[in-house]
Amino acid sequence: MAPHRESVELDVERWRRGTLTRERDLIAEEMPVALVYHGVPHVVMLATPADLEDYAVGFTLSEGLVARPDEIRGVEVIWGEEAAEVRITVAWERFSALLDRRRNLTGRSGCGLCGQETVEQAVRELQPVGPGARLSAAQLHEAIMQLADLQPINARTGSVHAAAWIVPGKGIQVVREDVGRHNALDKTIGALVRSGVDPAGGALLLTSRASFEMVQKSAAVGVALVAAFSAPTAFAVRLAERAGMTLVAFAREHQHVVYTHPWRLESP
Amino acid sequence: MAPHRESVELDVERWRRGTLTRERDLIAEEMPVALVYHGVPHVVMLATPADLEDYAVGFTLSEGLVARPDEIRGVEVIWGEEAAEVRITVAWERFSALLDRRRNLTGRSGCGLCGQETVEQAVRELQPVGPGARLSAAQLHEAIMQLADLQPINARTGSVHAAAWIVPGKGIQVVREDVGRHNALDKTIGALVRSGVDPAGGALLLTSRASFEMVQKSAAVGVALVAAFSAPTAFAVRLAERAGMTLVAFAREHQHVVYTHPWRLESP
Repeated sequence: MAPHRESVELDVERWRRGTLTRERDLIAEEMPVALVYHGVPHVVMLATPADLEDYAVGFTLSEGLVARPDEIRGVEVIWGEEAAEVRITVAWERFSALLDRRRNLTGRSGCGLCGQETVEQAVRELQPVGPGARLSAAQLHEAIMQLADLQPINARTGSVHAAAWIVPGKGIQVVREDVGRHNALDKTIGALVRSGVDPAGGALLLTSRASFEMVQKSAAVGVALVAAFSAPTAFAVRLAERAGMTLVAFAREHQHVVYTHPWRLESP
Repeated sequence: MAPHRESVELDVERWRRGTLTRERDLIAEEMPVALVYHGVPHVVMLATPADLEDYAVGFTLSEGLVARPDEIRGVEVIWGEEAAEVRITVAWERFSALLDRRRNLTGRSGCGLCGQETVEQAVRELQPVGPGARLSAAQLHEAIMQLADLQPINARTGSVHAAAWIVPGKGIQVVREDVGRHNALDKTIGALVRSGVDPAGGALLLTSRASFEMVQKSAAVGVALVAAFSAPTAFAVRLAERAGMTLVAFAREHQHVVYTHPWRLESP
């Protein structure tokens, strides 16, 4: 088990309407996590130090480093004092492709969008999603209410994101949390795949905004319905449109806005 | 001038308490922005297509690619249809150092924390900040109220972050907005530096969380007081503690919590 905690207790000064008090406060932890493929460092992300096996599997799939779950051969987490390293083994031809891409970049850097240094790498060509899961408005709103009780780290510390996977008629089946919204999504994808479940069979509910990367990662694993608590970006909407994905945003207990392919969200 | 808009109007389906309406909705734009140093691609970020010169200057400084503003020799923005490229020229020895670092990474990738693939690169050693600006609680709360009227993109679209620079006794002097919180901060830093103003002379107010990178970027340009609307992470608090920075979070109109070095925030 991980020797690290997802939250830390600290002494703080709280100022409220003219009064200063000294208190103990519980805040979320964040840790550099290095993803290393066959000994070759690929990326360092800041993440909540929990569910890192899920994270590594989800990231590897959602970033298109492998095409299928069975191409991920092994994941091992090494905990350090101030950072964690996740060692990932993939099918040999995938690692070979990764290395080839790297060789072409000799003498350059890379980054931002997870190892991408050109726009062509950052904005990948994606297969359109399949028919996927459909939800009624009532099912979506029920899941939103259900989610509040399924975020233990957020309940203790506040402002930690969650990504939930919903199966029509069964509600939320998997939730993962992280200080980073992309990480929470990758962890949920990884948790599903590690249980042998195809993410494409359900819908995703995100406590964050629907930015481009959230849509790209979801589409990469075939999820056809994504609902976000907060706003979408125009670029995310264009990608969802092209990918055939139903994108919902401003999802609240009694309301939501549908931006693309509304047919998967059956209204009352 | 930039031919791109920060927001886009779309047709949407809005569902509210059982009623479905078709409406026009204004949402924030987001665009891949490639930062290229002396013709060598460094990173692709998704950003609000506005103030990209500010962004490039701020990023170059806050990521430690140069040590001083005068080492940035030129910035040119090339607008494409679906992406922008920013061409940056820096002092020769800085570019040379950047290339040397790249050469050591031959055959590898890089990313996540803006071109970093090892934890040592991601978590930089920083000089402690100087005495910097001090604020009273009243000045901080006044700035928070003032900020609401200084976010035109957010007013139109919602959920766009802002970073404001406050001078004690003068209130907010500079604000920049972006869909990404790191980008908003970089733009504000760049706007100051491009006007010949040292960011270290003021405090920063962020509409986002105070995560590790926000503290690292602020400390890199010498800002000694950072206040965030939302929660900090424990890692951010440790960095602020080490750097001698005053870190304030959960900053609202009548309240806030001080996590480190409280002496710069004079209570009533």
